[in-house]
Amino acid sequence: RHLCQGFTGLTSNISNSVHVVAVTQTLSMASKTQVGFVGLGNMGNPMAKNLLKHGYPVIATDVFPESCKEVQELGAQVVDNPAEVADKADRIITMLPSSPNVIDAYTGPNGILKKVKKGSLLIDSSTIDPAVSKEMAAAAEKMGTVFMDAPVSGGVGAANSGKLTFMVGGAEEEFTAAKELLSCMGANVVYCGQVGTGQAAKICNNMLLAIGMIGTSETMNLGIRLGLDPKLLAKILNMSSGRCWSSDTYNPVPGVMEGVPSANDYQGGFGTQLMAKDLGLAQNTATNTKTPVPLGSLAHQIYRMMCARGYAQKDFSSVFQFLREEEGQ
Amino acid sequence: RHLCQGFTGLTSNISNSVHVVAVTQTLSMASKTQVGFVGLGNMGNPMAKNLLKHGYPVIATDVFPESCKEVQELGAQVVDNPAEVADKADRIITMLPSSPNVIDAYTGPNGILKKVKKGSLLIDSSTIDPAVSKEMAAAAEKMGTVFMDAPVSGGVGAANSGKLTFMVGGAEEEFTAAKELLSCMGANVVYCGQVGTGQAAKICNNMLLAIGMIGTSETMNLGIRLGLDPKLLAKILNMSSGRCWSSDTYNPVPGVMEGVPSANDYQGGFGTQLMAKDLGLAQNTATNTKTPVPLGSLAHQIYRMMCARGYAQKDFSSVFQFLREEEGQ
Amino acid sequence: RHLCQGFTGLTSNISNSVHVVAVTQTLSMASKTQVGFVGLGNMGNPMAKNLLKHGYPVIATDVFPESCKEVQELGAQVVDNPAEVADKADRIITMLPSSPNVIDAYTGPNGILKKVKKGSLLIDSSTIDPAVSKEMAAAAEKMGTVFMDAPVSGGVGAANSGKLTFMVGGAEEEFTAAKELLSCMGANVVYCGQVGTGQAAKICNNMLLAIGMIGTSETMNLGIRLGLDPKLLAKILNMSSGRCWSSDTYNPVPGVMEGVPSANDYQGGFGTQLMAKDLGLAQNTATNTKTPVPLGSLAHQIYRMMCARGYAQKDFSSVFQFLREEEGQ
Amino acid sequence: RHLCQGFTGLTSNISNSVHVVAVTQTLSMASKTQVGFVGLGNMGNPMAKNLLKHGYPVIATDVFPESCKEVQELGAQVVDNPAEVADKADRIITMLPSSPNVIDAYTGPNGILKKVKKGSLLIDSSTIDPAVSKEMAAAAEKMGTVFMDAPVSGGVGAANSGKLTFMVGGAEEEFTAAKELLSCMGANVVYCGQVGTGQAAKICNNMLLAIGMIGTSETMNLGIRLGLDPKLLAKILNMSSGRCWSSDTYNPVPGVMEGVPSANDYQGGFGTQLMAKDLGLAQNTATNTKTPVPLGSLAHQIYRMMCARGYAQKDFSSVFQFLREEEGQ
Repeated sequence: RHLCQGFTGLTSNISNSVHVVAVTQTLSMASKTQVGFVGLGNMGNPMAKNLLKHGYPVIATDVFPESCKEVQELGAQVVDNPAEVADKADRIITMLPSSPNVIDAYTGPNGILKKVKKGSLLIDSSTIDPAVSKEMAAAAEKMGTVFMDAPVSGGVGAANSGKLTFMVGGAEEEFTAAKELLSCMGANVVYCGQVGTGQAAKICNNMLLAIGMIGTSETMNLGIRLGLDPKLLAKILNMSSGRCWSSDTYNPVPGVMEGVPSANDYQGGFGTQLMAKDLGLAQNTATNTKTPVPLGSLAHQIYRMMCARGYAQKDFSSVFQFLREEEGQ
Repeated sequence: RHLCQGFTGLTSNISNSVHVVAVTQTLSMASKTQVGFVGLGNMGNPMAKNLLKHGYPVIATDVFPESCKEVQELGAQVVDNPAEVADKADRIITMLPSSPNVIDAYTGPNGILKKVKKGSLLIDSSTIDPAVSKEMAAAAEKMGTVFMDAPVSGGVGAANSGKLTFMVGGAEEEFTAAKELLSCMGANVVYCGQVGTGQAAKICNNMLLAIGMIGTSETMNLGIRLGLDPKLLAKILNMSSGRCWSSDTYNPVPGVMEGVPSANDYQGGFGTQLMAKDLGLAQNTATNTKTPVPLGSLAHQIYRMMCARGYAQKDFSSVFQFLREEEGQ
Repeated sequence: RHLCQGFTGLTSNISNSVHVVAVTQTLSMASKTQVGFVGLGNMGNPMAKNLLKHGYPVIATDVFPESCKEVQELGAQVVDNPAEVADKADRIITMLPSSPNVIDAYTGPNGILKKVKKGSLLIDSSTIDPAVSKEMAAAAEKMGTVFMDAPVSGGVGAANSGKLTFMVGGAEEEFTAAKELLSCMGANVVYCGQVGTGQAAKICNNMLLAIGMIGTSETMNLGIRLGLDPKLLAKILNMSSGRCWSSDTYNPVPGVMEGVPSANDYQGGFGTQLMAKDLGLAQNTATNTKTPVPLGSLAHQIYRMMCARGYAQKDFSSVFQFLREEEGQ
Repeated sequence: RHLCQGFTGLTSNISNSVHVVAVTQTLSMASKTQVGFVGLGNMGNPMAKNLLKHGYPVIATDVFPESCKEVQELGAQVVDNPAEVADKADRIITMLPSSPNVIDAYTGPNGILKKVKKGSLLIDSSTIDPAVSKEMAAAAEKMGTVFMDAPVSGGVGAANSGKLTFMVGGAEEEFTAAKELLSCMGANVVYCGQVGTGQAAKICNNMLLAIGMIGTSETMNLGIRLGLDPKLLAKILNMSSGRCWSSDTYNPVPGVMEGVPSANDYQGGFGTQLMAKDLGLAQNTATNTKTPVPLGSLAHQIYRMMCARGYAQKDFSSVFQFLREEEGQ
């Protein structure tokens, strides 16, 4: 069961005025040119498969060659490194764990920019520091190519089912070309602005999400200790100004909702460690832009403490459990 | 204009299973017995007027006799002190600024309990520490009377229009009697559990509200500095897991929404000082029950710092302005 | 071994200008009149013994009669309740766990004030909310007696050896009479100002202590992870502006110092739970006086979280351990 | 008057076992070879002058040529850029505002490494991210030269009087050579360990300093509101476990001490903006090493908020003023 499916997903349609693409199944599969894919991990793998399903010839690579096996069996051509990908494809998607990997995949000795063709479209779906996205875009521009950042919300489940949301930053005139590919893998593709704003939107959302989740957990815990029934308290909050996604859609208190990680011992979902990573990015961007983020910063520290206390692999809603346990337990 | 109308109000219907009363205009006004009302401030005044409108004879008092003038002109009988109210009415509503006032109004030398009749129903709509509500209930019980806590959400606007929400704690068998009166002044009356749980629900909601508001302000500020358009960022958050009441209903960034305090230089609404008071109550109850509330506690401190920097009278969404201002300004 | 001996103790002499009493052993034991003692727990017991050692006849009571056995065998007269103590002695010392116990011991049905003699001297050494000290002083004044607050720093070890420090609040003209008794039990007796300021001084010190301890723990942990030797780092901090009591006298990192709880698996010393209690008092006084205390408040929450994670009985320097443990452990 | 003289300075001797150099005036000035100096700002200027005073021929450069005027008049040779410095000197000191400047001065198109000679000694006294120090060291090593980080504590006053403290990271066998130069500019030179540990020590100290300063300010403010005299409270803290450098050497409350910024309207000293920068570095290193630093992180946010409220140029002890101001002011 994919508890995290649609995890940070956009939950309603938004108007065209903000450049959202309502994705429809592409029927004509003829004449599709090759698409490169760098990074075939938990997320990249199902994303590449969805490109194949939509009829795109895929040129793939990963630092661990065995990660390529599955897509190879489905018809992808596997090459040695990102430079080789760039040699064969002029549209490339990258999906990597963190900033250093992205820097290496683009500007390293076997990086994409070593063999990239002029006029190529490079789309990075990794979640990284927006400052790094801007650096990559500048380096790509020097080679006469276009770089866009397009981080996703939605976990492995959404990647499998092609229901990811992409938040896209980069030159607006390239957005149509990008959405053609991204819409094979996602249900929503949102244009956010200049390069780096895709990352910014993702980081902002997850910071507010973390604050809401910890706040909901503290509040539910306090209410329970004051004698309130948790289901009733959730209902009251959800009708009132305390309402948030963590209280009404992903409640962290076991027994309040079904089908969420709190109903399953905090397994599945979005790991505490991953949330800590995203909050670290938020903290870095806040520090670099001299923006005060007192609650975001404390949320980061709390998830960091949880990692130190054994919660790294549990869903991030387990902060309720972290705060709750009784003295002496 | 009453910006805060419905401010913390329940925004949708909830099922009967949680004892919510769908209020309908009471038509028969005959045979109504007297209702006492103690505390005719900004909130108490319109509440008492609504009782009068519904045909209840009102016996009123306030420490400032001039506060009684308006209801007196509308037909209320004004007496000297709470004890005199208790002498004349066996259903009494109190609406006072803080715990010491409530203690005095019930157990002081001229307090309600000095002359209360057995079997009376005492309803306190003040927002105070639930521990004090329990003390008052115990003292009332010794006199053979019933005490319930019934704090409100919704500001002066909701009080005027009879659209308050009451969160009620106390003996369940008395709830029907309480709701008869409260439904004259409010649109929703929610039964929360034993004495003190009305206060608990209110305090919990406002703590989560404060966390969500500061979190939204930090997030919007960070996103703007990272190059995102504020309206677009709000839209993305509201479709995603960062969504909360402060982002989708009461956005703190000027220009994002209309009809909210941020569109009006943070005038009207719910004052920073009042939020700081409620967060102080949340902090006290958390301390007394040994509940960790790290974000709630920091939210309290931020609103306290804002009070120290001149924001006391501004709407609590002005935290966006507090965090935003540029260096050197 | 009493690791906490001198724990929060004054570590150097201070000038007479601030009313510090250099305690010398009183030789003449003749003609000493009776002293009452209410509360014979871990701290009260050795304190009462020191009064006996100094030749004072002691009238003692405790809610648990068995707690009185030891002092009874040493010659104290045991009576039923605080009122009986007040009936027999006109100088009374109280040493109780928390505010409600103090309120009961003074103003309860068998409280001191029921039988207190005019002109008595009542000294409360409990650590409680200064507002309660003021209430007790006001109640005592109505009975024509004097109440002073005199909380201690120093733990059980200091209580045994008569090396406590007393921080005294109350009428300055009564300070000489108070110090005569207190100097039998303590090495330093400091006059702080009006009633409640003894409590205030204690609470302030412990709040800053908690902040310094957590700060030192974070800093040492960060430095170690950055490759610094912990002993060298402590040495550098202690020569520099990072220096504090927690870094130079009570270092929380195992191996840096000897004779402190961190050298003994955080046993002994000052328990996390007790620190959490004192921080709760600091928080309450800050809330009541509308004083922003962001770090003090977060320190409170961290000690509260530690209590929830099983650290309640460990020394408060175990926050280093709480923050340090590795992911996956 | 240089209020910040010795600001974060080491205040006592430490044993030789930790490689501290007791600096003695070097008498023989003959046969001294050229020393390069890159960065002649407020700190670099007096540092370079002290090298000249000690008889070292100096080759200097700065991005603002006019900054070189003063040292030129004192006999330094001014060249165009860091590469030219490296062409003429094989011992080079850099003193720059932040990481990007350091990266450019070493690895940029006119950077030191373009023309550095094998076997040169490169010492960076800037305060930057230790990760950048490590990168520079690795780049230097590839060119066959040695890089050490040696950030300073002590402000402009200490730079003028040659009383800085240097915290040095790098190969231990090069420490003697480094100290020969650094001891011309500083009173203490401390060896901290491998490359980056000099930065780590500096960052750790300043993080704990910030925590202690805010903690002291909160505590003094709370005590004053509770009725304590500020001088008496400072005295009590300084005798007790609340003692820290900010309470006993640099007290933030006007009137408590003389000769500190709080006695001079928070002018001089160490600016809030500079402290915010150092806390940003601490935050980055903590994030990168996944170290929880809840109080350090909140301290960062508080200094960031102060910058947003107009305190950027005031001494960092002005946090007392920031927290203190009354409602309505």
